[in-house]
Amino acid sequence: MFYSQRVFCGQLTLEDVGRRVLLAGWVDASRDHGGLIFIHLRDRSGIVQIVFSPEVALSDVCRGAAALRSEYCITVSGEVRKRLEGTENPHIETGNLEVLVTELTVLSESDAPPFAVSEKAMVAGAQSAGAESVAEDLRLQYRYLDIRRPSMRDNLVARHRIFQCVREFLDSRGFLEIETPVLTMSTPEGARDYLVPSRIHPKNFYALPQSPQLFKQLLMIGGMERYFQLARCFRDEDLRPNRQPEFTQLDIEASFIDEEFLYDLIEELTVRMFAVGGIALARPFARMTYAQAMDSTGSDRPDLRFGLRFVDVTDLFSSTNYSIFRQILQRGGCIKGINIKGQSERLSKNVLQNEYAREIVPSFGAKGMTWMRAEGGKLESNIVQFFSTDELEALRRRFDVEDGDVLIMIADPSYRVVTSVLGQLRLHLANRLGIIPAGSFSPVWITEFPLFEEDGEGGVTSSHHPFTAPECTDFDPKNVEELLKLRSRAYDLVMNGEELGGGSIRISDRSLQKKIFAALGLSEEETREKFGFFLRAFDFGPPPHGGLALGMDRTVSMILQTPSIREVIAFPKNRRAVCPLTGAPSAVKNEQLAELGLLNLGGRDVLPGTAEGENRIDHLSWVSRIGIAAEERPQLEKVLSQADELASLAADKAGAEEPMATVAPAANRMRPGTVEGQSALSRDQLLKSAPAVKGNYFKVASILE
Amino acid sequence: MFYSQRVFCGQLTLEDVGRRVLLAGWVDASRDHGGLIFIHLRDRSGIVQIVFSPEVALSDVCRGAAALRSEYCITVSGEVRKRLEGTENPHIETGNLEVLVTELTVLSESDAPPFAVSEKAMVAGAQSAGAESVAEDLRLQYRYLDIRRPSMRDNLVARHRIFQCVREFLDSRGFLEIETPVLTMSTPEGARDYLVPSRIHPKNFYALPQSPQLFKQLLMIGGMERYFQLARCFRDEDLRPNRQPEFTQLDIEASFIDEEFLYDLIEELTVRMFAVGGIALARPFARMTYAQAMDSTGSDRPDLRFGLRFVDVTDLFSSTNYSIFRQILQRGGCIKGINIKGQSERLSKNVLQNEYAREIVPSFGAKGMTWMRAEGGKLESNIVQFFSTDELEALRRRFDVEDGDVLIMIADPSYRVVTSVLGQLRLHLANRLGIIPAGSFSPVWITEFPLFEEDGEGGVTSSHHPFTAPECTDFDPKNVEELLKLRSRAYDLVMNGEELGGGSIRISDRSLQKKIFAALGLSEEETREKFGFFLRAFDFGPPPHGGLALGMDRTVSMILQTPSIREVIAFPKNRRAVCPLTGAPSAVKNEQLAELGLLNLGGRDVLPGTAEGENRIDHLSWVSRIGIAAEERPQLEKVLSQADELASLAADKAGAEEPMATVAPAANRMRPGTVEGQSALSRDQLLKSAPAVKGNYFKVASILE
Repeated sequence: MFYSQRVFCGQLTLEDVGRRVLLAGWVDASRDHGGLIFIHLRDRSGIVQIVFSPEVALSDVCRGAAALRSEYCITVSGEVRKRLEGTENPHIETGNLEVLVTELTVLSESDAPPFAVSEKAMVAGAQSAGAESVAEDLRLQYRYLDIRRPSMRDNLVARHRIFQCVREFLDSRGFLEIETPVLTMSTPEGARDYLVPSRIHPKNFYALPQSPQLFKQLLMIGGMERYFQLARCFRDEDLRPNRQPEFTQLDIEASFIDEEFLYDLIEELTVRMFAVGGIALARPFARMTYAQAMDSTGSDRPDLRFGLRFVDVTDLFSSTNYSIFRQILQRGGCIKGINIKGQSERLSKNVLQNEYAREIVPSFGAKGMTWMRAEGGKLESNIVQFFSTDELEALRRRFDVEDGDVLIMIADPSYRVVTSVLGQLRLHLANRLGIIPAGSFSPVWITEFPLFEEDGEGGVTSSHHPFTAPECTDFDPKNVEELLKLRSRAYDLVMNGEELGGGSIRISDRSLQKKIFAALGLSEEETREKFGFFLRAFDFGPPPHGGLALGMDRTVSMILQTPSIREVIAFPKNRRAVCPLTGAPSAVKNEQLAELGLLNLGGRDVLPGTAEGENRIDHLSWVSRIGIAAEERPQLEKVLSQADELASLAADKAGAEEPMATVAPAANRMRPGTVEGQSALSRDQLLKSAPAVKGNYFKVASILE
Repeated sequence: MFYSQRVFCGQLTLEDVGRRVLLAGWVDASRDHGGLIFIHLRDRSGIVQIVFSPEVALSDVCRGAAALRSEYCITVSGEVRKRLEGTENPHIETGNLEVLVTELTVLSESDAPPFAVSEKAMVAGAQSAGAESVAEDLRLQYRYLDIRRPSMRDNLVARHRIFQCVREFLDSRGFLEIETPVLTMSTPEGARDYLVPSRIHPKNFYALPQSPQLFKQLLMIGGMERYFQLARCFRDEDLRPNRQPEFTQLDIEASFIDEEFLYDLIEELTVRMFAVGGIALARPFARMTYAQAMDSTGSDRPDLRFGLRFVDVTDLFSSTNYSIFRQILQRGGCIKGINIKGQSERLSKNVLQNEYAREIVPSFGAKGMTWMRAEGGKLESNIVQFFSTDELEALRRRFDVEDGDVLIMIADPSYRVVTSVLGQLRLHLANRLGIIPAGSFSPVWITEFPLFEEDGEGGVTSSHHPFTAPECTDFDPKNVEELLKLRSRAYDLVMNGEELGGGSIRISDRSLQKKIFAALGLSEEETREKFGFFLRAFDFGPPPHGGLALGMDRTVSMILQTPSIREVIAFPKNRRAVCPLTGAPSAVKNEQLAELGLLNLGGRDVLPGTAEGENRIDHLSWVSRIGIAAEERPQLEKVLSQADELASLAADKAGAEEPMATVAPAANRMRPGTVEGQSALSRDQLLKSAPAVKGNYFKVASILE
């Protein structure tokens, strides 16, 4: 058959000049030059220009060419020739060639696509189209057109190459890929499970795995020694911008190994993956303990592409006269700061005082901020007069200050507040000042995490999971203070401020495992109930083992530098966990539900004893202390459902950007005819001293009537 | 750290003699020879014998060795030496070596395992243990011990190698592996879906994919051209011996190709996969049309490892005097037979008449069977006198008869009955006579399937799925007779009587697709409702495309020649879709159900209008026409629940073998004190003329009171 002779558009080279070729693909774009028709023919390999000339092709072929529209699927045959000098097109792979067509077959026609598929301008120097501005839900609804775009196609090709690279490398190191179940058990810890009702066992459920954690440890106990899997995992979480209900995780576990084995393995793997994307990473990767990371960047996933490291200056003020610092230090607090080198021109007194000290820093959770600018060999500030010359001199030395530098310091009784606020400030400044070098990648291992955290009830909870090995084993499981000081053998791989993955050396000793459960306050019975089948495996000669999981969607997205992980997933869900292409999730037939024992779905149930089922208009009436008449109810239902729609629309469109503070005029929309209530103050006056953000909460104007 | 110096047990060779090595692994078996202790140390790579001698090792090392038990996890170091001549062990990879230990560390102890893990005898010629006789549920419950067994480990290693081979080969041919969603939409066709309730969208459900069929076609429409995926698929089917609720499918699709492209690709792939298992397959594979397969083997998945092909002899009896044949031919029937070469000694008159003609063939669904044995240059039979000499001579020639051959013929008005019965008989005889050559593999492509089948209501339904391309397109969608004669461009890959996979060239033309839907009797509205989003994609220049899916569990199982697919899956479910290791599926917390709107689970619901909810004791009373008193009810409840348990136990233990006919003495177990009713006839007399099997139903004795 003729398809066996087909040649790929993007693979034509000067060596093919003079050759007759059969091409197949889609019409990317076309130009009609008075009888001479130029078309960009696109297949998976790339684009080549094909030319229909009345001097070469029969008239019905030329007529056929004139009728071609974008995204028609065609085959053509013709002769490859070199383009005339000056007519080359640098936008496409084959820009120095074209194919003079003699035969054309239209395989199928196309409606006008809902957005432009073409990304490559036909003329050198012309602007190419792009789908960046297209609403993402529209792209997802027509994903089959979206992935025809060369940029999306390149993402999927690169994802394949990266995955293939992972498999080849791990295979070469003796790792076996072993599939673990997707229909599995509900585990009592971690995020929310997706559940699958069993038809054969009514009232019982499978759970989709949040990770193959227990299975990979069981494979180690099963003597598999070196396991990996590019595993689909599932988390029913409330939706955040860069999360998907299902995601792909590179899961790795090995026996008879230590941290160094894993660091070596994962660094080599990471270097190879990034090399697929043309990015060279240097080895060995940096390492920081959790404590160092918090001390110097305020984050356990520090972005090390730029400086702005914290400098501790607590000791410089041990006998200060500045009362704010003195009080903080008396309460056991600390003072840390950043030197923003050479940026005093862009960080004026006004910006520092009115934006940062008054608005931004309080929104990050601190009570105040101290700033100083270095000019003319001196430190200047609104409070510099409160410090002694010695203190100022010590600051200059400690921060290595030169003229043009700006110091920002945060002082607080709480170490956590100082590091957290300064950490957010560090990222804010780096973005604002544009000091993050483009195209740079800074991997770092974060080690020595705390084994436990406070559980808020006087006890402890695992920072990672209860199978993580501690760094030392001779602790008292009842001494909470001691427990909180324990460090674990867990590690995270962080790059550019994002966690690509993490793991740990696991506990492989029965008695140590029991001690950890005792520290967590679990009785033997609770332990058995929660982890029974898993712990039983530890009775049969478990080997020392450890591993790691890498989030592959995020890793591929970082390698390809895409704005979201959805750009590297063929058929992602949107932010409401919906697939706009298929419409999933959707209603199903009653027969299906009946078989699963789910027919009497009562909508969202209320747990017995937690609340009475309530009508939302009654609820609204109660909450607002407004009586609602029966005749008002239909109108209210309508308004409420509009609000629902608006909310879901807003959720769909919500970007990752920081929200702006705006205030719309307030009015009672419930009662037509009410006039908008206008404050005597202007909007700016009204909001003058209102912080826009507090922690993770956004302040909004109260409802005025 | 010391693990970096570790050497794998199975990789030691004579070149290592004299070298000090560090080994890690599990105690496979041990022997104490009066102070000299020999141990088989096992890791993933294999086994090596380690020796503790009081002359070499310190006394506490020897004491430690004496305390070792099976499946303890240890490390040892010592010197590799050659074994004395005559003490080599051919059971293990390193049988000519041993390691003289000087250091021992017990990493963890083990309880006595519930079944033997060791499979390699320590002494040459000794019998090795095996877990074949262990109940499968016990093996699955302790799967982590089961996969330590070298045979299970080898299965998982081979599976990995086969998968890796698939990926490397398809990558080399330009195929991209692209992941499609697991949380997707419920499709209105095919088997039963597993459903996943959406928490965010109450009363809506995701479905787990039965295959990525629609997505792979969308990827073709999306211009990906060459796609594959080793995809997890899910079917909530009633359980059969060799099925799993989740399974792994190699999904392949390509554009701008024809059948020959796929045959070439898949043959090369199959050859490579089987080569991983040491099996050489010759190319090209055989091909048979569906009609040829049915004509000659009575099956669309013919086992071609042996002969016993059907020979049609209908024409030889066009003017026969044998009334049974004459009547059948008058009703439009046909006669086909098999020549069982040289087996007349094993197929006596008694066997042919009393076993095959009286019992086996009727159980396969035929009314009768004609047999003849060739002896002394003649055909002999109980009915040979009804045939003319010419007819007998013609039979001899048609079947190429020699002395010692046995002919079996089936005549029936229905072609389907003749081929079905003869097909079952063919397999039965091949197994009984042991004429299937061990270790042989006969791949065959089955082509030209019927496009449609009768739907039993005067219309047609798709044999494959409605997107399969027909072989010709100029048919009348209203002419059912013509539709049933249409052949499709579908193909199956069959090996040794099992379907490894199948696929088709798909429809890529809007108008043809509409014609097919019209033939299926679907209105435009139904079409839109069932396939709307998918059909919309065909409006945008779909390319010609086709593909195939291979069942990988079955393929790997065939390559490794394991008795079930569960032997090549790390963590399979049992026959009740339960994981005996984790206990999945299981009950979940009410809080989880409430979030999903599933709290008021009423067990198995009854669809409104289909039946009234009924008490099963009332039902029993009604069915049996026996009144049941209130005081009898608790007893009956108990008996019924015991019957439930028994049934589920039986389902668990049910083998794939044919059941035997047995009759237990009948008694009324409900009323204690009743004496067993004994028939005056002996058991054999009672069952003398009762067929044991009819179609797929097994006859059982009636309940006697």
